[in-house]
Amino acid sequence: MAERKIVTAREEESLDIEVGKDLILMNERIAAENLETLNKHGILAVDVMGSVGAGKTALIEVMVDKLKGKSRVAMIAGDVTTTIDADRVTRHGVPSVQINTGRECHLDANMIRRALTELDLKALDLIFVENVGNLICPADYTLGCHRRLVVVSVTEGEWMIVKHPLIFKSANVAAINKLDLVNAMGVDVDKLAEDAKSINPRILIARTSAKTGQGIDELLSHLGFN
Amino acid sequence: MAERKIVTAREEESLDIEVGKDLILMNERIAAENLETLNKHGILAVDVMGSVGAGKTALIEVMVDKLKGKSRVAMIAGDVTTTIDADRVTRHGVPSVQINTGRECHLDANMIRRALTELDLKALDLIFVENVGNLICPADYTLGCHRRLVVVSVTEGEWMIVKHPLIFKSANVAAINKLDLVNAMGVDVDKLAEDAKSINPRILIARTSAKTGQGIDELLSHLGFN
Repeated sequence: MAERKIVTAREEESLDIEVGKDLILMNERIAAENLETLNKHGILAVDVMGSVGAGKTALIEVMVDKLKGKSRVAMIAGDVTTTIDADRVTRHGVPSVQINTGRECHLDANMIRRALTELDLKALDLIFVENVGNLICPADYTLGCHRRLVVVSVTEGEWMIVKHPLIFKSANVAAINKLDLVNAMGVDVDKLAEDAKSINPRILIARTSAKTGQGIDELLSHLGFN
Repeated sequence: MAERKIVTAREEESLDIEVGKDLILMNERIAAENLETLNKHGILAVDVMGSVGAGKTALIEVMVDKLKGKSRVAMIAGDVTTTIDADRVTRHGVPSVQINTGRECHLDANMIRRALTELDLKALDLIFVENVGNLICPADYTLGCHRRLVVVSVTEGEWMIVKHPLIFKSANVAAINKLDLVNAMGVDVDKLAEDAKSINPRILIARTSAKTGQGIDELLSHLGFN
């Protein structure tokens, strides 16, 4: 085996300086206000995180259909550009707010505070917040939601969970999605579930396929929506 | 269709304040120094970007094998944690430096400057720099490499290119990867290629499978490695 060296980027070597801590504190404060606003209206909210193409929107679409007639649902969709995701969910008959973040790689609590003013909160029971497709940056920014769901797909390879411990630590629920492709991909789903549990022993795991509907009831139950 | 509203996060609404511009300028300056260092040693370098699980490491492994005996290759691997990717490539007999970025969602020029001091530059012709798995943040941070390659996988869904215009604008070459799964996924590869060309008409596109070896010669040619 050839030589391998390891360099850990220390704060003074990274170009991103220490404004980070102040931002996180300010974000936490606004997130707490958002949670209070949601609680005042009796609304439950879920922050749906995950990489590009993990199937966040597809899972929200399936959950919205299952909840129809039981709960009044809305969606807040974050994306650097485009309104594709909000448009998809809006077709299922739920109101939505699209947040275009520009260059930002995550939603933050201030964006959610703004989006909540665009919704008729008195007419809602549940809000799905679809975060920007990214397994790194959203971990640090809580939004004031009651639950954090992280969606991973069996197409993302066997290392995607161990490579992103922070987001699994910050989540209450994980969906291992696109289970219909598990044979084509040759991925060991038990191993993925073990990886998530070893990072966060309290995380609840659902094995889902938005395509076949497998695991959606379990996911809704894990989220407290039943 | 239910109501849909669009909110664009303006700078004063995003919690990330305007240190951004200064950082980008400082990064550009260090990137230019890195390029000078590489040129002085006659080394070509490629910044390999793409989402988690797109197949960046697998493509680098296949290219390293193809280049064996022709070029002296090294790898710099960026990851928030773990040394999995560097370990994989090191097994193919090339020296590597692993940069663990901690919470940072992208490599920056300063991390590369540091990593270059860990390699024996006189003994190298080529360096593959594997960026952190992320289609958003790396776009803004050039590293001083001669080429930027963005890898997308047919498993990431049909919208992944139009949702990430900045990274496709910043890249010279795109690999549409995991072509062996194109039938299972039902993705229109011509449409993906058109999306990339409409964002960046000068981008060179290779359709690849690290598994079958398809398109690897074309990719090496697009990168100027032949």
